Amino acid sequence: MSVSRALDYASRQAPRFVGELQRFVRYPSVSAEPRHAKDVKRCAAWLAQHLRRVGLDSVRIVPTARHPIVYGEWKRAQSRFTVLIYGHYDVLPAEPLAEWRTPPFSAVIRGNDLHGRGACDDKGQLFTHIKALEAYLRTQRGLPVNVKCVFEGEEEIDSPHLRNFVARNKRALKADVALISDSRMLGPDKPAIGYSQRGTLRLELEVRGPEHELHSGNFGGAIHNPLQALCEIVATLHDKGGRIAIPGFYDSVRTWSSVERASTRRTGPTDQQILEAAHAEGQWGEKGYNLYERTTLRPALTINGITGGHQGTGSKAVIPSQALTKLSFRLVPDQDPAEVDHLFRRHIARITPPTVRSTVRTLSSAKPAVVDPKNAFLKTAVLAYSKGFGVRPVFVRSGGSMPAVSVFWELLGIPTVLMGFALPDDGMHAPNEKFHLPNFHKGIATSIWFLGAVSVL
Amino acid sequence: MSVSRALDYASRQAPRFVGELQRFVRYPSVSAEPRHAKDVKRCAAWLAQHLRRVGLDSVRIVPTARHPIVYGEWKRAQSRFTVLIYGHYDVLPAEPLAEWRTPPFSAVIRGNDLHGRGACDDKGQLFTHIKALEAYLRTQRGLPVNVKCVFEGEEEIDSPHLRNFVARNKRALKADVALISDSRMLGPDKPAIGYSQRGTLRLELEVRGPEHELHSGNFGGAIHNPLQALCEIVATLHDKGGRIAIPGFYDSVRTWSSVERASTRRTGPTDQQILEAAHAEGQWGEKGYNLYERTTLRPALTINGITGGHQGTGSKAVIPSQALTKLSFRLVPDQDPAEVDHLFRRHIARITPPTVRSTVRTLSSAKPAVVDPKNAFLKTAVLAYSKGFGVRPVFVRSGGSMPAVSVFWELLGIPTVLMGFALPDDGMHAPNEKFHLPNFHKGIATSIWFLGAVSVL
Repeated sequence: MSVSRALDYASRQAPRFVGELQRFVRYPSVSAEPRHAKDVKRCAAWLAQHLRRVGLDSVRIVPTARHPIVYGEWKRAQSRFTVLIYGHYDVLPAEPLAEWRTPPFSAVIRGNDLHGRGACDDKGQLFTHIKALEAYLRTQRGLPVNVKCVFEGEEEIDSPHLRNFVARNKRALKADVALISDSRMLGPDKPAIGYSQRGTLRLELEVRGPEHELHSGNFGGAIHNPLQALCEIVATLHDKGGRIAIPGFYDSVRTWSSVERASTRRTGPTDQQILEAAHAEGQWGEKGYNLYERTTLRPALTINGITGGHQGTGSKAVIPSQALTKLSFRLVPDQDPAEVDHLFRRHIARITPPTVRSTVRTLSSAKPAVVDPKNAFLKTAVLAYSKGFGVRPVFVRSGGSMPAVSVFWELLGIPTVLMGFALPDDGMHAPNEKFHLPNFHKGIATSIWFLGAVSVL
Repeated sequence: MSVSRALDYASRQAPRFVGELQRFVRYPSVSAEPRHAKDVKRCAAWLAQHLRRVGLDSVRIVPTARHPIVYGEWKRAQSRFTVLIYGHYDVLPAEPLAEWRTPPFSAVIRGNDLHGRGACDDKGQLFTHIKALEAYLRTQRGLPVNVKCVFEGEEEIDSPHLRNFVARNKRALKADVALISDSRMLGPDKPAIGYSQRGTLRLELEVRGPEHELHSGNFGGAIHNPLQALCEIVATLHDKGGRIAIPGFYDSVRTWSSVERASTRRTGPTDQQILEAAHAEGQWGEKGYNLYERTTLRPALTINGITGGHQGTGSKAVIPSQALTKLSFRLVPDQDPAEVDHLFRRHIARITPPTVRSTVRTLSSAKPAVVDPKNAFLKTAVLAYSKGFGVRPVFVRSGGSMPAVSVFWELLGIPTVLMGFALPDDGMHAPNEKFHLPNFHKGIATSIWFLGAVSVL
């Protein structure tokens, strides 16, 4: 199989590829919002149709209890290797809408960037691999390796049905390595291969006070306000040094060698770069670690949202009857989400004041995962990046948590190559998300190289 | 003027009065919500038309920058006294709608109660006085005293234009006493006259962190979360004993004599009664005071609402860029809202961590007010209640804060008689608000007696 013929094709077809990606981004496939369920479905149908046009076999839309998985494969390669390509066609809600400079689903191109919710997370990155497959199939009527594509519609709601889908199709999904592009590079010329990701545990904590909302004039000062109680609880979850103040929480956190820590600090972005990417003024968090370590080697607890009481304009003199917070842990080896869940519940029960009641609900969880950097597929990815971007990539730890990586490791026994093409300022999960189009094209080239190089392993 | 002819009329017309009140309650005159601005206007038009039908003179709808004031008068009495009757035809938002057993603006009657948002706060209570005026005017073509009616449409948003309206019409509004029914009795057979109310200071506190929402996987552990910072700030506003922990806050709080405190404790509801009215399990607040004292003699700080980050279903792994809380102080003599505002701003500036920025906005304020219980109009109110309810009322302190009381005292130099007809379980400001119809009719009788008795002072 000729890599260069595929590269030539991709290069000639680049403008058409961009137009197709715009169509893909224009579907508001917001998995979290029931009102967008039909859009998710329409997006899945478009994607499946696209895989068929590209030339994949056995393309089908697999329903789940919520949003479908789009599957396609090509198993007629000479190679003994099978690559499982995973991505997700669902996107996060676009809110807060007021902060978008162009409508989130208009897929407008400005300069070298395609703007839109999902442009880089994950439609643009996912699409690089589809276009790489097309480049081989159209020029050589075949692929250098066997390929199985799993594109899900629930990644942004924590992949609630992926585990079950993989468990039911273990034999059909048999592969040697998973390839996922849903992460960030370190900078425009700094490609990165993820070899470690944090686990996650997402929870809801509800605090209830009086049976119904009360007039704060009549009762203010005499009844414990559940919103205030919630603040008091949340405020005690971290100590003043930025450490998580839940007894036992750090017991299972792995202590890394000074060599590993030095390498992590060297390959990762500097504190200054992280603050710039965050558009934040000051750092925060656990002492004794730089910001990159805090977001990769070390666990974190984030308050994702709080709601309670009067939310509208003006003021309303009430003591609310309840308050709710959504929070998520990022976990590291060797923490177990189930164990942390237990510690959290025990802690909340202990610190909830007797004047209110609290309830904890577990929304989802995923274990942390690490791949050996000496793995042959990771080395092949290094080669592919070197060709696609003209720069040798570094191995990075990811602070995020992709359930798919845990699922493929636990159920299929295969490692995942995390080949990120998003830039730090592409705004994954933020308003004005974009995808840097030069990275789209270099990503396609990198994928072409990877598939070609795996075939000669 | 014959009180008994007016009472007879009111008694015969009772069923029609209830039907009219239902029509009044059916206007969703929610002043806080711009989408209801037209409903507020329609309600004002209905009320003005009603005052004309009842026989008041010079009825007019006075526009303000937001919701109009409905004015009417009758100045042809033999008496030298003028009573200024104040009430409000606007209502609080009905949210949370899911908790209503019948639609909030259906004005359904079940048993002896008329259910609906605004049924007792304040449409039903305001209406008692209109019906008392009607009872005199229809039976005797006149009133025992001169009357000026000011019914505003912005009480639930803190009367932003009332002060200006009164200031511009000081001469026209000249009166000897203000009469307001917008408060609660102590129980079904325990009428109460308010002679003291807490002041108020309503604020918004915004905490801003990163410029835009961040992915908590990528940045969790390295950037201070404004929601968490807000919780940390809010949690420090009270000490563990339930006292407000803002330096200097208690400096101007009046120390009441043991006689005054004993009388307050004796006339007020017991802790148990307050907890039952609140449908709350446990008490909370400043040590050394019972619950009635905590809600009347002592100041309070209530967190009315918090919003920030992900508010929808499911989860969203974000660090929000900002968080907002709405909070309100209840102030007591001799606290000055402007001074407390200053103390609060200074305190927030001092405790805001350097990793986030905070902004305080003042929404509204009103000074605390007390009337001498020996005042002749208050004594007349005692007589009126004794006749209307067959029970001698007690003097009570109110925990709430009516801007009108401060405005009338400061600008017109007149005391206010707070003649409450709502029951503790009528749910002012809560879902399933209702008005106990026997109190509607007794309230009308009480108002008839009050106007009659003032004329012979």
